[in-house]
Order: sequence, then structure tokens, then C-alpha cells
Amino acid sequence: MKITIAQLNYHIGNFEGNLNKMIDAVNMAKEDGADIVCFGELATCGYPARDFLDFDDFIKQTLKSVDMLRQMADGIAIVVGSPSINPVPEGKDLYNSAYFLADQEIKYVQHKALLPTYDIFDEYRYFEPANQFDVVEYKGKRIALTVCEDIWDVENENPLYTVCPLDEMNSKGFDFILNLSASPFSYNHARERIDIVKKNVAKYNKPMFYVNHVGAQTEIIFDGGSLIVSPNGKVYEEMSYFKEEIKSFELQEVISGKENKEQNKDKIKLIHDGIVTGIKDYFGKLGFSKAILGLSGGIDSAVTAVLAQRALGQENVRVLLMPSQFSSDHSVDDARVLAENLGIQYDIIAIKDVYDEFLTKLSPIFKDAPFNVTEENIQARTRGTLLMALSNKYGNILLNTTNKSEMAVGYGTLYGDLAGGLSVIADVYKTDVYKLAHYINKDGEIIPINSIEKPPSAELRPDQKDSDSLPDYDILDSILFEYIEKVQGPNEIIELGYDPKLVKRILRLVNINEFKRYQTAPVLRVSTKAFGVGRRMPIVGKYLS
Amino acid sequence: MKITIAQLNYHIGNFEGNLNKMIDAVNMAKEDGADIVCFGELATCGYPARDFLDFDDFIKQTLKSVDMLRQMADGIAIVVGSPSINPVPEGKDLYNSAYFLADQEIKYVQHKALLPTYDIFDEYRYFEPANQFDVVEYKGKRIALTVCEDIWDVENENPLYTVCPLDEMNSKGFDFILNLSASPFSYNHARERIDIVKKNVAKYNKPMFYVNHVGAQTEIIFDGGSLIVSPNGKVYEEMSYFKEEIKSFELQEVISGKENKEQNKDKIKLIHDGIVTGIKDYFGKLGFSKAILGLSGGIDSAVTAVLAQRALGQENVRVLLMPSQFSSDHSVDDARVLAENLGIQYDIIAIKDVYDEFLTKLSPIFKDAPFNVTEENIQARTRGTLLMALSNKYGNILLNTTNKSEMAVGYGTLYGDLAGGLSVIADVYKTDVYKLAHYINKDGEIIPINSIEKPPSAELRPDQKDSDSLPDYDILDSILFEYIEKVQGPNEIIELGYDPKLVKRILRLVNINEFKRYQTAPVLRVSTKAFGVGRRMPIVGKYLS
Repeated sequence: MKITIAQLNYHIGNFEGNLNKMIDAVNMAKEDGADIVCFGELATCGYPARDFLDFDDFIKQTLKSVDMLRQMADGIAIVVGSPSINPVPEGKDLYNSAYFLADQEIKYVQHKALLPTYDIFDEYRYFEPANQFDVVEYKGKRIALTVCEDIWDVENENPLYTVCPLDEMNSKGFDFILNLSASPFSYNHARERIDIVKKNVAKYNKPMFYVNHVGAQTEIIFDGGSLIVSPNGKVYEEMSYFKEEIKSFELQEVISGKENKEQNKDKIKLIHDGIVTGIKDYFGKLGFSKAILGLSGGIDSAVTAVLAQRALGQENVRVLLMPSQFSSDHSVDDARVLAENLGIQYDIIAIKDVYDEFLTKLSPIFKDAPFNVTEENIQARTRGTLLMALSNKYGNILLNTTNKSEMAVGYGTLYGDLAGGLSVIADVYKTDVYKLAHYINKDGEIIPINSIEKPPSAELRPDQKDSDSLPDYDILDSILFEYIEKVQGPNEIIELGYDPKLVKRILRLVNINEFKRYQTAPVLRVSTKAFGVGRRMPIVGKYLS
Repeated sequence: MKITIAQLNYHIGNFEGNLNKMIDAVNMAKEDGADIVCFGELATCGYPARDFLDFDDFIKQTLKSVDMLRQMADGIAIVVGSPSINPVPEGKDLYNSAYFLADQEIKYVQHKALLPTYDIFDEYRYFEPANQFDVVEYKGKRIALTVCEDIWDVENENPLYTVCPLDEMNSKGFDFILNLSASPFSYNHARERIDIVKKNVAKYNKPMFYVNHVGAQTEIIFDGGSLIVSPNGKVYEEMSYFKEEIKSFELQEVISGKENKEQNKDKIKLIHDGIVTGIKDYFGKLGFSKAILGLSGGIDSAVTAVLAQRALGQENVRVLLMPSQFSSDHSVDDARVLAENLGIQYDIIAIKDVYDEFLTKLSPIFKDAPFNVTEENIQARTRGTLLMALSNKYGNILLNTTNKSEMAVGYGTLYGDLAGGLSVIADVYKTDVYKLAHYINKDGEIIPINSIEKPPSAELRPDQKDSDSLPDYDILDSILFEYIEKVQGPNEIIELGYDPKLVKRILRLVNINEFKRYQTAPVLRVSTKAFGVGRRMPIVGKYLS
């Protein structure tokens, strides 16, 4: 038996586009002589379709796509993820289902039982969990069909669920497991995926074919890395990261377990490639091609510019250099050198005159009020307005260059440097931004070394340095990581040896700046806990604040 | 038996504040000679606490509050909503529970079974549903304890759930029902609540005491309106809207069913009072007192200013009038008259010079490019920057004045007129903004009639009118209502008789402007479907766009 795994880049709500991709893959699989071709979770409509799933019209279009595939299931079985309608009135109206299409019929539909409802996931918002489990028999083989999370409730210490679908199916007996996933990228998730697939394979002693999505949907990036794991526990194949791939496998070969192939899992390379994918798909799926950003001469905007140029091409990225009287001598030079290294268009607008005009207009009200954060923010917002003017005039989406450390402690100006349609590196701590910069420069100096080595500064007042108001980034990032990614409270973090006062100050800064994060652009998610849809905090909460 | 209902305004994460309020209420109930005092759902920590619930430290503090109340449960029973820990490893770590505290003991804990996971609700993200049900006996009465949604699965045509907790409890027998709720306001929800409570009372032929929260948590407003319904189906008491109230009831009197009292349910009055509460608590719970907003002379900013003045007091609201060369003659006059009517501080800054300076700086890049939306947006962003400068200098939170119709179709400038810390009327369609204005003027002209009667315009180019690019607001709002509140697709809306081209154009505008709504401030929720956390849409989706 030959099984084709189609690791595709779907587009939410683009039924025609998704269907055409799948039709091409079915035709390729047929040419390959495959018996089964397998797509990802909710492949007809893309993942996560969110509240589009509440529209009957949307669901009808998914059913139409399934019906088109059914007609193609001739001499080949097609396994595809798509919503199905709950026939009984009680419970949610939909199931998240795996359709098994063969002989031009819907031969079997297995619903998903374990519905992730945490972090970025909201599946229980839409779907009723399965309470019936069976296997499907095809060409003499018994197949266990599972959808994504269904295989994750195995041998956990603190399982999220009370059901284990494969245990139920195991009582009926199966020869191999198909898993249709939409498993989002984070820099350590590929490793976890391999572990969980191996645990299942070990428990049931059967091979598993695990099909993932690839490509980004707004902030959520899918890395691909579809897996074939042999009963001996070896990774027979780990498919490409961040690109579409269609590949066929002989079941007997997989069972033999002779191959052992994995992708490179270097954290910084993964973050780099993930973000490039994220930018590319954000633009492509919105029908845009051109980006703009402000280059300050600092490391954050430099790294963002490189990632944008790699995602969109040098002809599609332009930058604006906007020095003020507080900019250091080297800032414009460093930014210009970077733009030249990248071969991207740059313009320079000094902001002093606009800034002065703002102050002139405000002076009858402000009178002799001393310079404070107000004037700093006027500079940042003048820059934001200039960038948005170019964005509006030429149709370039503004990229936001804020990093995760700043975003966490509110070190940024709403409508100023926090402006933009997409936050490129706001899930990357400053310490990792440095690593990204070195990774980018590994084969030669693209980012001027001065941008990397000079002390970080917002340059919004004379001789300002980040270190005036923040601790060293290695300490700051460690505390933030404990609080954000590891969900540790103040006492647990203090017990790790950090200064209690500092810990409380940092956690307070994170919490009181929730209002800023509420208003910033979607953040490309590369960690297990990004700001945005996966981290939901009350603005008016009085906890640790 | 005497039962005290404590309808309180909790504050998320403010354990000390919430506990002190409850302690005061317990003491009042004791003085009243009550046998039982009942608080709302998750009263210890406030609702919705969102991902704070993921922190062990946060949960420990809720347990501490419950323990303090337990010690007070001496001669009186205290019923309080609070999280409890799921003792088995399988499933979510928490329950959403009602604690029955008596004789200084935790006498019984009933977990919530029906976990709303739709619209603004994410309960399945945190809680395991109850699968065991019992009643609690106290002073010879058998009491059914339910938490909010637990009573909503009764006689629905399309029930969201497969369980009905009161059916389970009914098999054990009970004398009355207590319901601990956190049921958010929308202008038609009080009516639905009364209906559902009556249906339960009718089904089981027992009285119900329904305790709600009051006050706002960021965008979510709780209206109170706690209910006592007699077995004969009469509303024995509907407590106040939008204010705290503690009141005691003799069970026998309630059973006798002689009273029938309801609050005024006028839609526009409710919206008015709800928004005033929303503003008040957003500021109060964040520890701020002062607001700023831009007054354009139009109806949206006028209504927002009145609501702010009523919420915060005239001394705490200041406005900025920022005419441009495109402003109509009357705009500044109308705005000034309103400010004087409200007794609030106003300043005037003409934006032309700053705008011109922006254009001067951009001219080497823009050259002879024709005036378009770019220049309109520069005006809006100049205003946004000026408002934020005053906000930063004086600690006034900027109020956003966008209405729901504009917000829906993207008729607004990010970082310009879409700036602000709180969107006051962005869940009110333009046609209802007119009604609000008339309601405000019902006892005399507060908002100048000219602001209400002149054709709506953004005044960003010569002789601009909203009607140049949008249909009449009564048609626009009707189509938007079908799409947003009623979740109808294009075909269903066209079948109602609207122009198909117009319907498609409007729905497309809604969908392609998701990126703007992603970045705007929290919207005070007054309808069943507000923009924000209750309506989750993919930005890159290609559906109807």
C-alpha cells in the first residue's frame, strides 16, 4: 500500500484556492500510484478559520469542497480534514472531522475528540467532541483516523483530557495511524511532536503518518515537518519545514523502519525561517507585496529589515531613516549601510521641524511644563505618521520592529514605534534578536557590526540608554521567560534567585502595559507563548500591578 | 428563612478589595438576621479573570479569600463563587465552583457544568465541567446550587449542551434554586434572563434567587438586575441596574408570589447607563480619573463627551478642538457650545501648520502625487498625536469616539481618530447614536441641534460627506446588524431584499478592515455581538473579501 502525504499551505476561507491545491495533489498521488492521499486538519477552509465557522454559508462551502474531492476519489482514497455538521440538536453545531473518501463515496467520518482550548486554540468554541470511535477498512488494511490533538493524550503526567481516542480504536484493531494536523510552529515544537508521535507508535506498535499544514495564517505559523514514524520508533521521514511538499511512502518500507531522517532543529535558524514564512504569507494572503519600515540604526529594525527583504525581495522593501536631534552620529550611517547591503530603497526625513511645529502648537497649553515622556512620544508618533503616509501613498504595509522584551515591559509608544500592520519580531526576546543578527551575519556582515554592538537606546532624549530604565537584557529576558512562557508567579521566580524588588517591578510593568499590547499589530508567533490571541489578559486587572 | 442577595461590583485580581466588600455584605446580612448570603460567580477574583487563572499564585489567593469567608460563616451560610482545584490529574486543572460555607466549614461545593465558550466567553479554556450534582441541606431546606449558564440549558430548540444540571438535582429534590451569575449586559439581555429564569421556575415549580455582578471589567459591562422569581412565575424582585445593592428576602414571602417588580428596559436608556458605567469603571479600576477627547463638532464626539462627563464629572473631562482648512464653519462653534454646556475645559489647536510641515517633509518623496487618503490620514494622525500629547502630559486617558458603523466598514484612520484607550460608542450603530443624542437632549439642548442635524462628514477634504462613500446609515446599519449580530451570510441578507451589489460591498468592507479593528481600543460592549474579544476573525482570511 502506498500513501501520499500532502503538506500544503492553505488559505483561510479561500475555498477555490485550497481545493485546487488538493486536486493537484490528488492527481500527483494518482500518477504516483498511491492508494491513499492524506491532507491536513480542516484543509478545505484553512486553520484557524475562527468565527467564520459560525456562518452557515461558510460551512456549506466546506461541504462543497468535500463533495468535489469525493468525486475524485476514484481508484484512490482521499483523507481530508473538514468541518461536519452535528446531526443532533444538543451540543455544538459542528464537528472537526477527518473524511475518508473512497469509491466516490464518503466511506467514513471520524470526528475529533480532543479539542484544544488553550493558548491560541479555541476549538471548543465551535466543535462538539467525538464520543464514538471506529477504524476504517480499506484495501485490506485497518486504519485509525485521528485529528491533531487526538494523539496528544498519551502517557502525560497531567493530561488535559479524560479520553484517549487511540485506546478506543485499538480495541477494534488497526494496522496504521493517520493523523491530520494543523500543529503550529514554535521553535521547540518539532521536537515535542516527534516525541508524542513516537510515544503513540511505541504504545500501539504501529506506524504513524502525521500530516501537518505549512505556511502562516496571520500570526500563526505552520512549519510542516510532517512525520512518518516506523514501529521501531525511528523517524522514517520528517518532511521539509516551511515549504509545501507532496511525498509518497510504501507502507511496507515504513514498517521495515530502515530510514531515520530528521530536519535541522537549530532554534535561531527555525525562528529566522519561521518569521520569513510569516511575513511572506501575511503579505501574499492579503494580496500585498510591498513593505515599509523605519530604520533607526539599531539592531531591532535592522533584523526586521533583513527578514523582510528575504521574505519579499529587495525590490519590495523600502525604508525610511528619520533622525532627530537626539539621534547618535552613527545611527543614520549604520542604517544607510544596511539599506545598501540589502539593496533596498531608502529615504531620509529629519523629524525636527515637524516635532518643533507640534511643540509650538502645544506651547500655549503646555507653557513651561518640563520635557518628559510626552515629548519623547511626539517624536515616535511623528515617525509613525511619516511611515504611515508612505504606506498609504504607495500601498506598502508598515512592519513593526518591536522586540518581545520591549513589548513585555511597555517600552514603546502606541501609534509611534508600536505602529504597523504586522509585528515581525515581537515574539523574540532582545537576547535572541542579537543571536538572530549574528545568524544573519554568519556568512558576511549584512547588519553593520556597530548596530549590533552599540548600547541599545531609543534615542528620544539626550544620551538615553535602555539600561537607564531597564535591567540588563539577559536578566530581564530570563524573568520575562519565567513569567510569560513558564507561567510562574512572583514567588516562584524570586525563589530562582532573582532580586525580589526587580521581579515585582518587572511583573508589574508587564501587567500595567496590557493596554498597549491590546492595540498592537498581530505578532508572528515563534515561541510557546506569544503576545496576542494566545495570551488573554484583562486590562483592568489589579493582579501584580 | 431569610436570604440576602449581594449584587456587587468586583475588580479582577483585587482580592483584598473584593473580600472586603463581601465581608461588609456578610456583616450587613447578619444584622439583617439573614440565614444565607449569596454572592456572584467567581466573586473572589472577579470575572472574567482570563489567563490570570493559569497562575497558581492567583488561584491560591482565591482559596485564601474563600477561607476568610469560611471563618465568617458563623450563624449564617455564605454562598460564594470561586475557582476550585480539580483533584484528579485528568482534565482541566480547575472547576468554576459555588462554595456553600456554613458552621465555619466548607459544607458543599457544586461545580459548574455548562461552560460558556462562545462570544466573549472562554470558560472551557480554564475549567473542567462538573459531572456530579447534588443539593445542599441547610436549616431544613434543600437548596439547588447553580452557577450562571447551568440554568440556560432548559427547553432550548438548539441547546448548546448535552446536560441539564437542574434535572440531575431535581431527582434529589430541592426547595429553591440559587444561581450565582456573572451575566454580561447587552441591551436586550435582561429580558432574556428573566425569560430563562421563569422557564426554570415553571419547570421545577420552585423559586429562584439569581445573583448577578454589576460594574464593568474593561469592555464587559455587568448590569446587575439580580432576580427573585416566585413559583407562580412572577418577578418578585428585579434589583437595580448598574449599581451595587444588598437586599434580603423572606423565602416564604417569595413563595407567596405577591410582588411583581421589574426595571425599565428602554434600549437607549440601557445603552446610555451601561456606557456611563463602562467608562466609570475603566477609569476607576485602572486608578485614573481624567479623560480627554477630540471634539469635532459632529455627533459621535458630542455623545462621547456627554457620556464621559456623566461618568467622570465635568472637572475630569477636557476636550481639544482641532479644526483644519476642511472643517465646516460651524464645527468649532458647535463643539465650543457643547463644551460650555457640559462645563468642561476645552482648548483649540488648528492643525494646518503641522499638517503643512508633514507635507513639506514628504514632498521630496511624494513630488506631484495627487491628494488622496494619505493626506486625509495625516490630518487624522496629527490630531491623534496632539490628543496623545495632552494625554501623556496630564494623565488623561484618551477616549475614542468611533461608532460601530464606521468601525465595521473601516471608515477611520488607525493611530488617528481610531486612537484612544477605550472605545466608548464603538458598539453603537450610527442610527442609535442619533437616538442617544436625542435621549441626552430630552430635557433640554445639551448637544447643539446642529451637531445632530448636519449631514455626517469626516471633514478631511473639501465638501466631503459620509454619503459620498457609504449608503444611508439606516440601510448600512440594517445590513451590518444582519451580518454581525445575526451572523447571516450574503445570500440570506440579499433574500431580505437588499441590493446584492451593496450587500457584497458592505460585507467585503467589514472583512478587509479586520486589521484595523485588531488594533483599536477595547470596545464597551452593549450589544450581543461587539467588536473585540467576542468576535474573532482571521485577518488574512479570504472569505467574502
